[in-house]
Amino acid sequence: MTSLKEQCQLAKRASRSLRTLSIEKRNAVLRAFADNLRKHQDEILQANQMDLKEASALSEAFQDRLMLDSERLQAIAEGVEQIADLDDPLHKVLEDRILSSGIHLQKITVPMGVIGIIFESRPNVSADCTALCFKAGSACVLKGGKDSYHSCLAIVAQMKAALHQYGADENAAVLAENPTHEETQIMMEDRSSLDLLIPRGNKKLIQSVIAHAKVPVIETGAGVCHTYVDESANLNMALQIAVNAKCSRPSVCNAMETLLVHEGIAQAFLPMLCAEMQKQNVIIHADEKTRQIVPGLKAADEESWSTEYNRLEMNLKVVGSVQEAVDHIEKYGTHHSECIVSETPENVQYFMDGCDSACVYHNASTRFTDGFEFGLGGEIGISTQKLHARGPLGLKELTTYTYHLEGKGETR
Amino acid sequence: MTSLKEQCQLAKRASRSLRTLSIEKRNAVLRAFADNLRKHQDEILQANQMDLKEASALSEAFQDRLMLDSERLQAIAEGVEQIADLDDPLHKVLEDRILSSGIHLQKITVPMGVIGIIFESRPNVSADCTALCFKAGSACVLKGGKDSYHSCLAIVAQMKAALHQYGADENAAVLAENPTHEETQIMMEDRSSLDLLIPRGNKKLIQSVIAHAKVPVIETGAGVCHTYVDESANLNMALQIAVNAKCSRPSVCNAMETLLVHEGIAQAFLPMLCAEMQKQNVIIHADEKTRQIVPGLKAADEESWSTEYNRLEMNLKVVGSVQEAVDHIEKYGTHHSECIVSETPENVQYFMDGCDSACVYHNASTRFTDGFEFGLGGEIGISTQKLHARGPLGLKELTTYTYHLEGKGETR
Repeated sequence: MTSLKEQCQLAKRASRSLRTLSIEKRNAVLRAFADNLRKHQDEILQANQMDLKEASALSEAFQDRLMLDSERLQAIAEGVEQIADLDDPLHKVLEDRILSSGIHLQKITVPMGVIGIIFESRPNVSADCTALCFKAGSACVLKGGKDSYHSCLAIVAQMKAALHQYGADENAAVLAENPTHEETQIMMEDRSSLDLLIPRGNKKLIQSVIAHAKVPVIETGAGVCHTYVDESANLNMALQIAVNAKCSRPSVCNAMETLLVHEGIAQAFLPMLCAEMQKQNVIIHADEKTRQIVPGLKAADEESWSTEYNRLEMNLKVVGSVQEAVDHIEKYGTHHSECIVSETPENVQYFMDGCDSACVYHNASTRFTDGFEFGLGGEIGISTQKLHARGPLGLKELTTYTYHLEGKGETR
Repeated sequence: MTSLKEQCQLAKRASRSLRTLSIEKRNAVLRAFADNLRKHQDEILQANQMDLKEASALSEAFQDRLMLDSERLQAIAEGVEQIADLDDPLHKVLEDRILSSGIHLQKITVPMGVIGIIFESRPNVSADCTALCFKAGSACVLKGGKDSYHSCLAIVAQMKAALHQYGADENAAVLAENPTHEETQIMMEDRSSLDLLIPRGNKKLIQSVIAHAKVPVIETGAGVCHTYVDESANLNMALQIAVNAKCSRPSVCNAMETLLVHEGIAQAFLPMLCAEMQKQNVIIHADEKTRQIVPGLKAADEESWSTEYNRLEMNLKVVGSVQEAVDHIEKYGTHHSECIVSETPENVQYFMDGCDSACVYHNASTRFTDGFEFGLGGEIGISTQKLHARGPLGLKELTTYTYHLEGKGETR
């Protein structure tokens, strides 16, 4: 067995050869990876069965996340092909100018190097992340939960076979063989091999990586998203946006958790909103003012406002102004996605400027915060921190840049 | 006394009001800050005298770094005015497009929020950093060494007075009142108030911040920079570049530490190089091959290759190819700045692609890695990591971005 530290070093070495791998070759490897996933379906599904057997005591939802079948594997292979179809994010000239010294400066996108992904039990993550990182010219060290180990191993084996087919270094895709807690800690501290860590999973996992990593981390995922219905809002539009933001897919991070309603339209809007949400089986935690208008709702407490329910459950609060709405969002939000429904330009401006979030919407559902919707063609997560990249992380966000400086013997 | 945690919270609150402070007002505050520094010269120099008195047992070099006089204070004030003259880095539209959903997306530069600066004893850092952060719309929490506390306090007081003059929140510039180790630890963990930490100082300080911070950090400063003289190099040019890179200012991070020379020109180049370096009083640590050509040089050991001397001292090594040069740089370098002197396009290409550094030069001295030389008008440090920003950190690198999404009731 190779230690995780050694695996990271192998990935680092592989990353050096990726720096000059042409886009044609990178895409060819990805297409071969997709082909291999299809050709070796039986092997992969058998490996998945081993994981499922060991997880038989766990919840049905957990087993569903873990489960692969022919259809899901097909979707994974198609996802890899879609990544092959995307534009090359590398070697883009971001700046091109002559310095006062006469030196010709070019700022150029280059690979990040080695990206570590720490994730839970969804086997598709191993394929998606490997493909995105590879397309962006980076090696990838995957450290998944032990529950999906056999599935991920079978998937990564197909990527390694594709790399081998094209004479590329197989350690461009590495799955941690030995995912003990101690080894993970070593990985999180290994700045000599890893350039970036992206944790993907629940809040506890992400917070643990942030607390222990010395390698730079991009924080993803936590989404306490808000919708604010202003006094001047078109109430039908507000209703549709709120219901969509909460109900269309409550388990994802861009779903709404808290609806803020201006007091001037509370009497008109809250009864219709609550009726519709109740039709959709949404449990509502409400503040006192709301409960006076719509009796029978649960009372929200201090903890409610910062809870990411990830299910058909939400908070509802009456506010006196757009300022109060923004104050609430800044106090309890996670800087992910917020929306104002309003027809008053000054209030819209105040909201857009005041919300310190990755994505701020006017008159549209927060559910659009997504790599595909943003035209990135895929995403490795949604960043809620401010360093490097915010919002959906596509191929471009997985690169860094370098300055190339061309001189004629200049000295200073 | 206010705890550092509370000071950070005050800075966070101030940062919210900075988001909408016009560029005219930001520049006016900066000019008032510069004026105040001049008007209150006596106060500031008196405070500096207190610091110098307490440091009287420390080294001369240390006291020189700490010392302020009329001329140095004038230079600090001019530096602040130069920052006021720079373009506004905020509210730049980086992308502007219509999504397939019909939503109008704009990607816009916005302030980072609160930037923590952990530094040592140079009082000018408190003025430079405050001014750069403020211009970029961010509040700044300064945590300096206790040696320069009185000087920094007197400088920051002038910024607070300028903020007050224009009705802006004085906590946009905060100096840690209580810089104990425990308090610093709290600051490094305070993700609720701080968005970014930039340590400025020696290697030990920077490594300690990296090891202990949970707030995202930009690593700056460590520069083991290389120059590689290829077989086809113009030897006169190579000599001038090497001498400039080592000798023009050996204490800074963009100075050369190691010179690599192709074996094909070693016989011709090394004697002239060593003669010139010795004229400049440079101590040379050399590998065996070099010592056979130029007798009497010190022997380099394994540790030499990763040493940042920061003085008139360097390493010298003969390599067999550009590949070996890049391998050496990747093994021992700090990803700061490297140079190839060569007239062979394929070797230049190999070097530029292969060196994973912030700045890679062809036929020019690494000493140009500098915010002013790059036309950024100033810098807060030189990043040697790959996340967010590489190389000189100017105003643009102190901002982040947000997506503004304008809809007409779109749902998903």
